[in-house]
Amino acid sequence: MLVALLQANATPLDVRANLATIEAAAVEAAAAGADVLVTPELFPLGYDPLGIDAAFDAGSLPQLRRELAALAARHGIGLLYSVPRPDGAGRLNISATLLDAAGREVLNYGKVHLFGAEERTAFVGATEPPGVVSFCGVNVAMVICYDVEFPETVRAAALRGADVVLVPTALAHGFDEVPQLLVRARALENHVAVAYANHCGTEAGVAFGGGSVIAGPDGALLASAGPGPELLYARLDADAIRATRADVPYLAERRPDLYARWARE
Amino acid sequence: MLVALLQANATPLDVRANLATIEAAAVEAAAAGADVLVTPELFPLGYDPLGIDAAFDAGSLPQLRRELAALAARHGIGLLYSVPRPDGAGRLNISATLLDAAGREVLNYGKVHLFGAEERTAFVGATEPPGVVSFCGVNVAMVICYDVEFPETVRAAALRGADVVLVPTALAHGFDEVPQLLVRARALENHVAVAYANHCGTEAGVAFGGGSVIAGPDGALLASAGPGPELLYARLDADAIRATRADVPYLAERRPDLYARWARE
Repeated sequence: MLVALLQANATPLDVRANLATIEAAAVEAAAAGADVLVTPELFPLGYDPLGIDAAFDAGSLPQLRRELAALAARHGIGLLYSVPRPDGAGRLNISATLLDAAGREVLNYGKVHLFGAEERTAFVGATEPPGVVSFCGVNVAMVICYDVEFPETVRAAALRGADVVLVPTALAHGFDEVPQLLVRARALENHVAVAYANHCGTEAGVAFGGGSVIAGPDGALLASAGPGPELLYARLDADAIRATRADVPYLAERRPDLYARWARE
Repeated sequence: MLVALLQANATPLDVRANLATIEAAAVEAAAAGADVLVTPELFPLGYDPLGIDAAFDAGSLPQLRRELAALAARHGIGLLYSVPRPDGAGRLNISATLLDAAGREVLNYGKVHLFGAEERTAFVGATEPPGVVSFCGVNVAMVICYDVEFPETVRAAALRGADVVLVPTALAHGFDEVPQLLVRARALENHVAVAYANHCGTEAGVAFGGGSVIAGPDGALLASAGPGPELLYARLDADAIRATRADVPYLAERRPDLYARWARE
């Protein structure tokens, strides 16, 4: 599977401008032969929790989803996008959706760990573990931003069979240790690849650091971005990823019965 | 608390030579004002699981422990040492013992995750979570070698209140990503300091990489060793460590009820 990862600057609540940015990246990624384009957290709306809380009409979501599905189908490329999602109880989750190259939804995920007071004002944390879907021969899961900083989340994806974890994020400037240390550690400790797609520039007063990465299952960086707009690529092969689990079998040598007992004690 | 960390080469089954190496380090570390000297996994016997299995008399352990306690007391420095420990069922664990500066045992831990066929021949994995003890004003826990590569183990120590996790290890050459990536990630994701003390040189045919590290609670390296014998130091302050938990409160923002449900599903 050839993954393309979009690092870009969004304009808060300017859906037209943000979809145009996604579409330009989809054109380029499709021409490069990519199977999927991964875009940052909440990119179609921009990362602006309070602005979304104040001014976003959740009633527009079905139409937005149809436009994103049409965009993927038009360019024949899978697409990971992140938008708000009604939680069924009158509030919104932050979610991620994976579309196949025909624009069909194949996986959905709600962010479990919200970051900071603004996100908690606008959203509520979801409660389901990351699901896994076979996509272009690779088992794919998604988590969102702060989720990846908790080893429990990526572990749950790996234990459900993920080979690759796709992570839309909105990481402010000054936290380089998240992609450089935690994302790479998640990849190595689970023997999965992790693709972490960040915003760049400033949105709603928040300066983003860029620094998106794609880490291989040995923790090495397969691709990494600077501070500005960029499209990253990495080819991820399920057999090669699974082969890394033979020598040091982290997943097989866990002691889950002990961990469960320790958590109860 | 000033931690001293010994990276050194042991001689398999030559207890006298290995205690002399520890004692020389204790002299130097005590003169530097260190509160504790952390030594590598199984250092008093050398890292030689099959040699220990074939030729080590567990009946000699009480006398060995008395000698190590006398060494600590003689130099007025705390000491972390790692030796085999009867598991109560006729086999041996790999264990770590923390002595205070009077030579009194204040904490004991048995390695939960054994590494490789040779360790599993000679030892059995322990089952208890890392305990925590207040030591020179800092809450200290211990895990051993391969344990630290599993996020569950250091997490269990942090949830029990650890500020500092001391890790005797025996990491073969060629796995630099363990200290450089996983140990630093463990420190950051739990906001604890982690001191990881490795062998160097060759013991029983295994080439060790050295590369011991002391990582701070932001994942930064406070000290790191090259490939040869070395004594590392870092001053670790409980208040400063706990202060790192204010801005991004990983431990407080975990969702343990969800993790427990996910593990059952």
